[in-house]
Order: sequence, then structure tokens, then C-alpha cells
Amino acid sequence: MQAASKNSLSTLVNHQVRLAARPVGLPHLDNWQFTTEPVAEPPQGGMLVKNLMLSLDPAMRGWMNEGRSYIAPVGIGEVMRAGGVGRVIASSNSRWPVGTYLSGMLGVQQYSVFDDRSIPRSALAPIDPQLAPLSSWLNALGMPGMTGYFGLLEVGLPKAGETVVVSGAAGAVGQMVGQVAKIMGCHAVGIAGGADKCQFVVNDLGFDACIDYKADSVRDGLKEHCPDGVDIYFDNVGGEILDIVLTRINMKARIVICGAISQYNNTTPVRGPANYLSLLVHRARMEGIVVFDWADKFPAAVREIAGWMQEGRLRSREHILEGGIAQFPEALNMLFSGQNFGKLVLRVGDE
Amino acid sequence: MQAASKNSLSTLVNHQVRLAARPVGLPHLDNWQFTTEPVAEPPQGGMLVKNLMLSLDPAMRGWMNEGRSYIAPVGIGEVMRAGGVGRVIASSNSRWPVGTYLSGMLGVQQYSVFDDRSIPRSALAPIDPQLAPLSSWLNALGMPGMTGYFGLLEVGLPKAGETVVVSGAAGAVGQMVGQVAKIMGCHAVGIAGGADKCQFVVNDLGFDACIDYKADSVRDGLKEHCPDGVDIYFDNVGGEILDIVLTRINMKARIVICGAISQYNNTTPVRGPANYLSLLVHRARMEGIVVFDWADKFPAAVREIAGWMQEGRLRSREHILEGGIAQFPEALNMLFSGQNFGKLVLRVGDE
Repeated sequence: MQAASKNSLSTLVNHQVRLAARPVGLPHLDNWQFTTEPVAEPPQGGMLVKNLMLSLDPAMRGWMNEGRSYIAPVGIGEVMRAGGVGRVIASSNSRWPVGTYLSGMLGVQQYSVFDDRSIPRSALAPIDPQLAPLSSWLNALGMPGMTGYFGLLEVGLPKAGETVVVSGAAGAVGQMVGQVAKIMGCHAVGIAGGADKCQFVVNDLGFDACIDYKADSVRDGLKEHCPDGVDIYFDNVGGEILDIVLTRINMKARIVICGAISQYNNTTPVRGPANYLSLLVHRARMEGIVVFDWADKFPAAVREIAGWMQEGRLRSREHILEGGIAQFPEALNMLFSGQNFGKLVLRVGDE
Repeated sequence: MQAASKNSLSTLVNHQVRLAARPVGLPHLDNWQFTTEPVAEPPQGGMLVKNLMLSLDPAMRGWMNEGRSYIAPVGIGEVMRAGGVGRVIASSNSRWPVGTYLSGMLGVQQYSVFDDRSIPRSALAPIDPQLAPLSSWLNALGMPGMTGYFGLLEVGLPKAGETVVVSGAAGAVGQMVGQVAKIMGCHAVGIAGGADKCQFVVNDLGFDACIDYKADSVRDGLKEHCPDGVDIYFDNVGGEILDIVLTRINMKARIVICGAISQYNNTTPVRGPANYLSLLVHRARMEGIVVFDWADKFPAAVREIAGWMQEGRLRSREHILEGGIAQFPEALNMLFSGQNFGKLVLRVGDE
């Protein structure tokens, strides 16, 4: 066993957030249980990770529901599932020595113990904090970045000169989609909520335009900013915005269904796109994506995106909350009220 | 001018059906105007066609609405657009001599006059009545056949062993989809309304199974007849059935959006597929088709399908109405009440 100090482990307390009850609509405090546990020695061949930052993702809301989706739900009483970055602080696994920085499914807790079985299950990957700040590994170089990169390139199939529209443009996935669209020579138009987000999307991220759906008509905005129609729509929100974009698509348009954050807390049925017959009129395609399908290509994508960041062609913007584990319930709900500005990250430990 | 008899033309009267008013919901008699015209001499370079059979198609309902879709709407006062088969009875165009049988956009009338401009616009194609009965040229060898053939093969992308589900299975497009699916080695399951249609689909057309949506639960039927899930769904109906099938699709499923007959007479907004996020969970695709896109490949497809018919591997079943032009309004509405049994055809002239 290799450890910073064996004795010091026994003095550590692991604060955790567990799923207490499945939410109806927006999650609230009753859905969560705060627990503490002593930090355990990792088993033989395992390791102990100190969690530094956790990723807040819209998909988490789906994980809280009963019934299998693309991934099993979090069980009642289990530590809430969350991606994050951390540092190995005790290990008897030679592939993961003490000091290794990693990303993966760490859970909403301060420390995570892994064994032979949970290491492969948890999508762990070593990360290089010299290449980019830790928080970028949850954003441009993490799952949201991979989602935007592969969803756009492999399903959106952008060609130079085409018009790409992305909703949730200031969010983690949206940032990547619009910036990669620009790198591919496309006309990139974002949809986001609020003037400040739209300014950020245009001025800092380099989109050609951004429509503020809270203040302006999305229909008029699309007419103005997409005079040649929409070739690719990358949808993170669903609902009314999806229906409006469907009225503006071009022949052979591609609609990438990445998420539907406007519908995740519905207590009524999901709103289906009433204008879906526009797909017929325009011989267009609507296709769903799940990022894990491209896992074997992540390392190459990380290299390419990190290169773009170093060349100053792509930015990874995070909104880092400093409230620790206790802030998790509030932090998650910020996603649904659109209060986050860039990828939302919760710091849960000091380096 | 080459003509059966020049003098005889002047004695002919052309009975026509024109669009009098745009319908709200199901078309009724007030939407139509019956007119007569003397039959005109065709202009220089043009021809006169005696119409023999007209095709009744769900798409006609869309052509009656205002607003451009994949094709311009029929104007108020214009002869209603319709595909059909006919015979040239007067001509000064050497490409279309008297006696030529042809198919194309003839309109709901007994005689159609074509000139230099309307010949290319009307999708006219010579047909060979020796190869197959005239009515088959509006079915398996016509637009519905082309729709089912290309929609399944080019967008559905069937692989042997996969499960193909098609709604409107006893209809013109559905017949073709299921029969081609079987020829491709797929498991073919139809959805149709009524026990007699389902029996026809299984016993005469060779589908593996057919679900009677009027009598039985589509959900249970899919569980029973598609035990391995649905790889391709060819949708002619939309509405609730599309939503139910979305709950049974496999990973990487393809949904071909060909039509939505359940929604065409809605006076409320079209019902969007509330379960569309199943596309995301299953990395599946929903894509719209319009048959005209494959026009340059029609001749090769006609040869292949006619070959299958001659080998007894594929049937073209038509439901032929004998009431002439006057029966058109009633005939069209039979499509929406599902009274037709096979491709609905209206005979408007004797050979």
C-alpha cells in the first residue's frame, strides 16, 4: 500500500449526498440525504481518490428517475452519480499510483474508493493538469466537450458554409458545438437565455450570432441570423424551440438530439415536436446521440481539442461554485433555471 | 397532327373536378366543383391524353392546404392534381405518338392536354401494359411502389434478419415495404385496421404477422410479434402508433417518415411524437422521404419490381372503383376512413 500517510486516512471524513427519494418535477431538498462515513482503506488492487471538482449535468435529472434509460437509474440510498476530477491519495494498483489525476464517475462525495470491479465500471481516465486547468477536464476535455465534438462531427456532418444552430449555446455542450462549427467553416448561431450569455457566446466564443430566447422571438431571430436556413440543429433543450427550428430547416438538414432540458422536470408528458413532418418535407433527419458510443475515440479528440485551446481557437468556460458538497442540491437546480454561465462545476476539495 | 379522328375530338366533353375551397378537417362536397369543358385540340408539339385510371393518395389531402410543402398547393379553381394512367389519343409530339400508354400527373378529369411546358412538369413516363395490368402502374410500379421500395432500401437500410414494422400495411406503400422487406430477408410485421386486411397482409402478401390496431393493442402486438425489438419502422400514419413503436425500437433503429395519415384532417395541431427522446436512448434516427428524389432511378426499380411480380414473389393489389369522375370526392375520403383494401384506384375512362 502506497499512501500519503496511512495514519492520516483514518482521520478523514467523507461527506456524501445520497438519493433519498425520486423527485416529481424539479428536485428539492427532500430528495437528498446528507451522510458521512469514515474514509476506508482501499482494498487490495484498489485505490482511494480525493475528489476535487464535480460536474453538474442535465443528464443527472434522468438518472434520478426510475426505469432504465441509456444507463441504470441511481438507486434509492445510493450516493448520487456524478462525474468529476480527483487525485489518487492511496493506492495498491500500479496503473493508478498516488498523485495521479483522473476523471470519471466519482459520485457526489469527497472521497471515492475503487476496487478491481469498480475501476473499469467508472470510466476512469488519467488526466494531465499541465495540459489544461482541472475544470476544463469536466468541460471541453470532458464529457460535454466529447458530446459536442462527436455529436456535431459524426452525426451533424458539418460542411463549410453550412449554418449550424445550437440551443443551450452558453452551456457546456453548446460552447463546444458552436466553436467546432466555426473551426469547420460553418455559420454558427446560438440560442441562449439572457443578454449576458448571448454576448459571451458571440464575443468570447466567436459565434456569428446568438438569439436570446428569454427576450426575443426565436422565430424572428432565426429569420434574421439564418437567412439561408438551418442545415444542422444541435438540440439540447427540446420543447418549443425544437418546434420553431423545425420550421426553418433546409433540405437534407440534420437535427442532433442531444437532450431536452426544457422537458426533464415535466410532470406532464414530454412535448413531442408537432412540426416533425417538416422532416418529410425537407428529407431531413433527426438522430439521437449518447457520448459513450465514441469512447474509443476520446483520447484523439482530447488531443485535438487541447491543441485548439493552446492555439487560442477554442475556449473552455466554466462556472465554478465554491460551496462544497453541501451546495450540490442548489447547484443542480441552477442548471434547470439557466443560472449557470458556462459549464457548471462544484469544487468539493482542495488540491 | 396525328389523331384517331380529328372530327371526333370536337364531340368529346371533359368532366373535371376542381378545388372550390380549402377544407377544414375532412374534405366534403362543398370543397369540390364539378365542371365540363369541350376537349381542345392539343397545341403544336403537344398531345391529348384520355385518362383511364386515377390514383387516390393520402398526399392529396396535403395538396389541398394553403402554403407550400414539398410541392405547391393546388390553386382554388384549378383541376385537382392527381396521378393516373392514360393513353395518347392525339399528338403532334414524336416522343408521344398516338396509342402510347403513360403515367403521370393527369388531374381529376377525363382528358388532359399537354404542351411543351407541361409535358416535362407532369412527370410523364411511358408504361408498358403488357408488362403488368394498367392499375399496377399506379401501385407497385407507380409512385406508391417507388415510395415503399426506395424509402425502405435507401433510408431504412434493411439487413437480413432485422425486424421491419410498417403501418398502413394493406395500403399501397405498406404492401411494397413489407414484401420488399421479406425479399431482403427481414422479419416483416404490418399494422393495419381490421381482421380482413390483416389476413390479406399475412396470407396474400406474405408478411410474418399483422397487428389489427382497431381490435388489438398495438403495444401488446409489438411485444408478441417483434420479440427482438424493431430495427426499422416505416411510418405512414403518425399519431399514437408512432409513439407506441418508439417505445419498442432497437439501438440504431431507423424510422422512415413517409406520411401521417392519422393527422392529415386534424383541425388541431399535429400530434408530435412525445416519445421522440427514445431516439436519444437508442441512438436512433427518424428521417423523412419524398419519392421524387429518386426519380432518376425509377426505371431500374420498375424493372426489378416487375421481375419480382413475374416470379410470383411480389403482388400488386388494387382496389378499383368504377364510379368515374363523379365518385372522386367519396373515393378520396375512403382513404381516411380506411375503407380501401389495397391501392385505391378510380376508373375514369374505358380503354
